[in-house]
Amino acid sequence: MKVAKFGGSSLASGEQFEKVFNIVMSDPKRKIVVVSAPGKRFASDIKVTDLLIECAEKCLKNEAADDLVEAVIERYASIARELGLSSRVSNMIRNDLLTVLSGDKSNPERFIDAVKATGEDNNAKLMAAYFQHKGVEARYVNPKDAGLIVSDEPGNAQVLPESYERLFELRNLPGIIIFPGFFGFTKKGEVVTFSRSGSDITGSILANGTKAELYENFTDVDAVYSVNPNIVEKPKEIRELTYREMRELSYAGFTVLHDEALIPAFRAGIPVNIKNTNNPSAPGTKIVHERTTSNGPVIGIASDKGFCSIYVSKYLMNREIGFGRKILQILEEYGLSYEHIPSGIDDISIILRKNQLNPALEEEIVTRIKTELEADEVKIERNLALIMIVGEGMRQNVGTMARASKALADAGVNIEMINQGSSEVSMMFGVKAEDEQRAVIALYKEFFAPVPVNV
Amino acid sequence: MKVAKFGGSSLASGEQFEKVFNIVMSDPKRKIVVVSAPGKRFASDIKVTDLLIECAEKCLKNEAADDLVEAVIERYASIARELGLSSRVSNMIRNDLLTVLSGDKSNPERFIDAVKATGEDNNAKLMAAYFQHKGVEARYVNPKDAGLIVSDEPGNAQVLPESYERLFELRNLPGIIIFPGFFGFTKKGEVVTFSRSGSDITGSILANGTKAELYENFTDVDAVYSVNPNIVEKPKEIRELTYREMRELSYAGFTVLHDEALIPAFRAGIPVNIKNTNNPSAPGTKIVHERTTSNGPVIGIASDKGFCSIYVSKYLMNREIGFGRKILQILEEYGLSYEHIPSGIDDISIILRKNQLNPALEEEIVTRIKTELEADEVKIERNLALIMIVGEGMRQNVGTMARASKALADAGVNIEMINQGSSEVSMMFGVKAEDEQRAVIALYKEFFAPVPVNV
Repeated sequence: MKVAKFGGSSLASGEQFEKVFNIVMSDPKRKIVVVSAPGKRFASDIKVTDLLIECAEKCLKNEAADDLVEAVIERYASIARELGLSSRVSNMIRNDLLTVLSGDKSNPERFIDAVKATGEDNNAKLMAAYFQHKGVEARYVNPKDAGLIVSDEPGNAQVLPESYERLFELRNLPGIIIFPGFFGFTKKGEVVTFSRSGSDITGSILANGTKAELYENFTDVDAVYSVNPNIVEKPKEIRELTYREMRELSYAGFTVLHDEALIPAFRAGIPVNIKNTNNPSAPGTKIVHERTTSNGPVIGIASDKGFCSIYVSKYLMNREIGFGRKILQILEEYGLSYEHIPSGIDDISIILRKNQLNPALEEEIVTRIKTELEADEVKIERNLALIMIVGEGMRQNVGTMARASKALADAGVNIEMINQGSSEVSMMFGVKAEDEQRAVIALYKEFFAPVPVNV
Repeated sequence: MKVAKFGGSSLASGEQFEKVFNIVMSDPKRKIVVVSAPGKRFASDIKVTDLLIECAEKCLKNEAADDLVEAVIERYASIARELGLSSRVSNMIRNDLLTVLSGDKSNPERFIDAVKATGEDNNAKLMAAYFQHKGVEARYVNPKDAGLIVSDEPGNAQVLPESYERLFELRNLPGIIIFPGFFGFTKKGEVVTFSRSGSDITGSILANGTKAELYENFTDVDAVYSVNPNIVEKPKEIRELTYREMRELSYAGFTVLHDEALIPAFRAGIPVNIKNTNNPSAPGTKIVHERTTSNGPVIGIASDKGFCSIYVSKYLMNREIGFGRKILQILEEYGLSYEHIPSGIDDISIILRKNQLNPALEEEIVTRIKTELEADEVKIERNLALIMIVGEGMRQNVGTMARASKALADAGVNIEMINQGSSEVSMMFGVKAEDEQRAVIALYKEFFAPVPVNV
């Protein structure tokens, strides 16, 4: 039994609905279908979820939102027309949305969640109607009826452990189950949504709960690429990667699938297959617990701008018990999370994502470290990019660092920082943001392209 | 004006005293001479300081120490005889030692400090007598009279800031000043010693206080070597290195001069010259604030066994604010100081000197991290060696990491850990202890020897 989740672009039009139908019908193991809200049909299109958020915000301010409401309804109605469905389903969607919009607004966060959730919920109903229209036994299942119970954190729900056992019952329903992604219900019966791209989370939870053999995640790319295709043209596709590799790659910018969404599937040991709705015969990328490593040490190269570092030096720092802890304590008091802490003998650098800081906060932190820790020097360096080289094959490979650092040196890239040694499947390089592209290209050439470096 | 400090092996015999005399007289700027206690004359000899400690401990236990007392007195007496000095000075030393040994024993630590200090104190008196015997204007100066005031921490005195101004007055005394190293006086007038190799500290304090142009530190090697001569035969000598380089090299095993001893000279901007009493015409090694870097990126390679690491992994660790701080807090509660903290996305390793741990403590720490931090995995890896490549020239050099990691890869050494990025003048590699020698030799060949690697 498989769980198949389809993203917004896979559900943006009648044509896309047809593709989904054909994909589901082509494999009798595809029992549970998780749907997102309709996404973009073309680059300048607006996603239904975004229309709904605007709608909800206007209602909260008592502003007229009729145009937006009609735009949302028309997205479903046009799909229904394209598929030759009766107007009954469009009318039902209209009524549902209007009912939710006229609901209780005393708790704005809860109201927004309820409005957002209609995007997926009505799309699931529409999909179920289409399957039935095609003469297939299929049913819409509501998360409440299925027992998908979540914590009461609007916009950031966490699944409660007791849900899994109840969800297992879905296996016993006859026919195909069409399940809306993105939201669950609190114990009191209120709608709460997951964080953004929460339909991936729903799919992962259902795969875990129903003990599926595979979680298929249909999106609009053929595979996860070994490097950002905006930096390297037509990069090698990754056929298979481990959860750990995926996690390390997501960390520095791989965005195909949010790594937190994978946790329920990961914990249940269920492999995930990322596939393309628009090219379903392509094998896609499989995320597994273990893989054979035949193809060289590196599977992917990720990079991300947007880091900065706080450099602190103090003579004889390393004799002072508690120094590092005290710096981390100061950061913690401001709710800042740090990424890495490379250190010399008498100096330490703390690498953070720079979107957490602002000039006033920076000054406050620098002052506190200087005075409370009597540091000799404290300075903030901005515009750092982190580059991750990831691969399970590195465990057994002696020369990977030599190859990587030589490739960077030959490309004239200065390595600001190296963090290697804790993870066995990755190496991390810090470079100046302006060197990021050059560094990634040099590393890609070294580990993937069958061409000599430095031509 | 220069301060010249002579170590124990430079003062072990009459012959050595003569060398010291000749060195001091050959440069009229050598105004202040700091002396250690007599050291070893041959490999199996016992240092006077060690005899004195045994003496003091026996006295505290009311055991007979006559043999030891005579052995100490005989060391001075034999030097005096060799130099043709009258028995008056030996008698004076005998009386002084017996007086101290019969002193107040109610505070054992203070008693031991007073006994230990006589080693340097009497050697300074003997040296002054020798200079006078040779017809040179010279005087023994007592640290109390000179105003060398220290904190009341027996065996670990810290100089008090007000000392420096008083010590400046030494410049106004006529002739050569012979000053005993290793101890000062509390505000109440009690003798307290510095930590071991404290004569280096005294010399550094006097250089600072008298605003000397140079602090000469005479020992028994021609220079600081670029690598441990027990690993590489006849390694290149270092002519000049910066304080920072010295500090980074000392950290991982360079022991010529204790880096803490340098602080007073460092703070006053006074260069230090390490020279050989037995070969004073050799230029020695100069420690300076800045140097020109003409000779390649690396100045020295240091290595040290005796490290271990605590590896901790937890899925999504890097989203958890305070995780690193909590680990460091646990270590701090046991008074453990850590060296470095390389980290992956979901794992962190803490590198410590392993002499701080024992099996019971290890188990306790592992258990606490597992339970209090809900870590997925905690394990201790032993037998780690750290290798430091040090050099100011690395700041401007793009390919140093590539050269170093290629040299290690070619030698078949697996890099367990790299810590680079905070210090601009060093790179640190962690390797298995059994690979240490091979790694150091490979790096030395790469950066110093004009021979191809891998012959």
